[in-house]
Amino acid sequence: MKDIQSLHDSRRIDIRKVGVKNISYPITVLDRARKTQQTVASVNMYVNLPHQFKGTHMSRFVEILNRFHGRFNLETLHLILEEMKQRLDAEAAHLEIAFPYFFSSDSGKDSFCSQRYDCRMSGSLQQQLDLVVEVEIPVPLGVSDPLQAGVIQAEGVWGTVRVSVRLNHFLWMEELITLIEDGIAPVAGSGSASRVEELCLQIDATLGSDDAFSWYKVVVENITSGYSISASVEGP
Amino acid sequence: MKDIQSLHDSRRIDIRKVGVKNISYPITVLDRARKTQQTVASVNMYVNLPHQFKGTHMSRFVEILNRFHGRFNLETLHLILEEMKQRLDAEAAHLEIAFPYFFSSDSGKDSFCSQRYDCRMSGSLQQQLDLVVEVEIPVPLGVSDPLQAGVIQAEGVWGTVRVSVRLNHFLWMEELITLIEDGIAPVAGSGSASRVEELCLQIDATLGSDDAFSWYKVVVENITSGYSISASVEGP
Amino acid sequence: MKDIQSLHDSRRIDIRKVGVKNISYPITVLDRARKTQQTVASVNMYVNLPHQFKGTHMSRFVEILNRFHGRFNLETLHLILEEMKQRLDAEAAHLEIAFPYFFSSDSGKDSFCSQRYDCRMSGSLQQQLDLVVEVEIPVPLGVSDPLQAGVIQAEGVWGTVRVSVRLNHFLWMEELITLIEDGIAPVAGSGSASRVEELCLQIDATLGSDDAFSWYKVVVENITSGYSISASVEGP
Amino acid sequence: MKDIQSLHDSRRIDIRKVGVKNISYPITVLDRARKTQQTVASVNMYVNLPHQFKGTHMSRFVEILNRFHGRFNLETLHLILEEMKQRLDAEAAHLEIAFPYFFSSDSGKDSFCSQRYDCRMSGSLQQQLDLVVEVEIPVPLGVSDPLQAGVIQAEGVWGTVRVSVRLNHFLWMEELITLIEDGIAPVAGSGSASRVEELCLQIDATLGSDDAFSWYKVVVENITSGYSISASVEGP
Repeated sequence: MKDIQSLHDSRRIDIRKVGVKNISYPITVLDRARKTQQTVASVNMYVNLPHQFKGTHMSRFVEILNRFHGRFNLETLHLILEEMKQRLDAEAAHLEIAFPYFFSSDSGKDSFCSQRYDCRMSGSLQQQLDLVVEVEIPVPLGVSDPLQAGVIQAEGVWGTVRVSVRLNHFLWMEELITLIEDGIAPVAGSGSASRVEELCLQIDATLGSDDAFSWYKVVVENITSGYSISASVEGP
Repeated sequence: MKDIQSLHDSRRIDIRKVGVKNISYPITVLDRARKTQQTVASVNMYVNLPHQFKGTHMSRFVEILNRFHGRFNLETLHLILEEMKQRLDAEAAHLEIAFPYFFSSDSGKDSFCSQRYDCRMSGSLQQQLDLVVEVEIPVPLGVSDPLQAGVIQAEGVWGTVRVSVRLNHFLWMEELITLIEDGIAPVAGSGSASRVEELCLQIDATLGSDDAFSWYKVVVENITSGYSISASVEGP
Repeated sequence: MKDIQSLHDSRRIDIRKVGVKNISYPITVLDRARKTQQTVASVNMYVNLPHQFKGTHMSRFVEILNRFHGRFNLETLHLILEEMKQRLDAEAAHLEIAFPYFFSSDSGKDSFCSQRYDCRMSGSLQQQLDLVVEVEIPVPLGVSDPLQAGVIQAEGVWGTVRVSVRLNHFLWMEELITLIEDGIAPVAGSGSASRVEELCLQIDATLGSDDAFSWYKVVVENITSGYSISASVEGP
Repeated sequence: MKDIQSLHDSRRIDIRKVGVKNISYPITVLDRARKTQQTVASVNMYVNLPHQFKGTHMSRFVEILNRFHGRFNLETLHLILEEMKQRLDAEAAHLEIAFPYFFSSDSGKDSFCSQRYDCRMSGSLQQQLDLVVEVEIPVPLGVSDPLQAGVIQAEGVWGTVRVSVRLNHFLWMEELITLIEDGIAPVAGSGSASRVEELCLQIDATLGSDDAFSWYKVVVENITSGYSISASVEGP
């Protein structure tokens, strides 16, 4: 028994984390067309602590968040993580911010159009900042029209593409979304399951040939089946 | 002010309700093929009280539920409501039970098939029992195949039909589901919005011509649009 | 059968509704301190139609919503309903808008504090506009401190108070929230079930003695029980 | 550019996964007191594929699940994974099953008591089976009674403890739950944040001194705060 115990001790992973989760918080994010956009985020913050918990001051998480209120962007995200690490005396700090982002094209009366994209930013700071940006893009459901010899009309939502990336340089959220949407044709006809894989490889090719990304992950989900059918690939 | 106050008093609706909600509870329901089926329900129970609350014993709701454990059916539902009314000294008692119900057809190796139907029973007892049975039925998404001149193949879920009924006589859940499903063809081609209305009228006609129902409500929802498109009708 | 059929016909309720549900939409609402506040709403829109559906143009719902983009308030809500009724040739029009609303008090460094309140506005227009405003207010969980002879300290959330009102005159959302919060002390000690009823009657008294409300409903829910314990009252 | 490309190629992670998610499925699990318990599961199944997708037959996932219907336990879980790997020609297979599990102690009239525990089993098979069992246990909210000098009475739910384990030998779900519950006293008084950490270390000590576990993770969450406060630790 003694040997097993000492083995346990040497293998001890000892990852201790404390934090706060699901804080509903109003944030202001960058918007290429309109400079800023106010939206509502769900925020998670946590830190890795050395071997013992020592009565962590949980209220500090929210205090730090409040200090940066109204100035949320990639730069302040780094500063928030720095402050979390320092004030909570932590080895590493993590911040996750999920929010709906809306594209709005005001091109005249009745033509305003607003599409929702669910976004997420996850930052981790140990020695260096590691930032992952994620966006979920709806895939249109195309229905081929038998009267017009198979012409495909978009009608509803077939599923989603969720893309996570690590960036080599700054990119507007709009640029990331446009890049992915340009590669998505409406899905129709037979073979929704195989279509999941095709779409996944197609976006894999798009992201893999772009220098903006040092890493990416693509998850395609077909949500019209009662359950989800999904395919995913990581690269490059 | 005095006049307004007395006006207020005479108009006073004074509906006071207390209860418990979202109790997760294992129940046994009737199953035509297999006699009984165990499933997991979410239970709401509440009572209407005379003018003043008087320190209602909330724990009695769960005590009553426990007494009828393992014997849940339309008959015990009536008994539970009687006991709620009596033990909580109430003018009326209400019980709502929502649960997934599975059809299972064991017809040989590899051919087991299990479809989930979300059901709900809502009973109210003042002088007489009023019982509403509800079931949600998935509508298949049909895709017309251009290679076969518009032949429609079911592929995924287009939406749901939610039917609520008051019954003139006992009906197996299986009978209610079959009655509705027989009238639902896969939905394909253009016009998903107008299809919502067609389907609604089609089921309206089916239920309206059946003597089993003293009342019904039909809600059809197309869930493939990012948002829902719905149509509803009540009858007869 | 003939008699029953004619009976059915005479009793025929014939409520036909069509609409769209769960549209995620960015809106701008009035904010007393900051003039306006941008938030994200979930929108439902539907109309009551005469006896037959006639191929309702569902896309018009969203078109109408888009026309009033960025100008959402009690006045435009009335205009939206007018336009829904007219363009969809309906007997009645209904609009429900649910959104998180944040109070933000910027009173110096580190002291920004942002509390989320879930709000809902439901408007119906047949001949006249009927408007119901609803707000959900968290009730603090108080814990009595044995070292200080029962002093109660707020610590966490004990439950919620959901108040729905019909207004006699304009009221800021902030005024409605403050009115209710002033009457809520932290809940502690034994008797969480009876506390539900006390709190309900307390807010009933507050709202019933205020001329601002032509109708109200109060629902108090204790959410710390695995299930919910609730009490409700309508008035005046 | 050429160098970067070849660098990319050599770093290529190429994790390709396909699968199905959120299948609602009735299952029968082992129950120490009553031999078996029928409940409703949410099932995820996926496989890792070699470099290219090749038109995966997604329907096979559900076919395999159906073959083992009514015989779900740790042994069949292994067989399901074997069959997934083989029939889908995969490098690895994964199966996740989440379900509510109820303890029921029928000890006479009115004394039936049924507590829900959310459980999850996650199995992965590459060369060897790796199985993680997870259970979520509610932590009672204690309220100290000032009249009785700080006596703590359980009243509601303070939060949850979620324990994940890898087992050295078979353990009944009831044994795992009892082991953890024995170490949880009702939480009361000041310091809910620090209490999160104490509780986490306490269960860490319990699990770390038990030979049944080759690995474990403990996550404690206080859910009474509007947001969640959590602490976690992994061992041994």
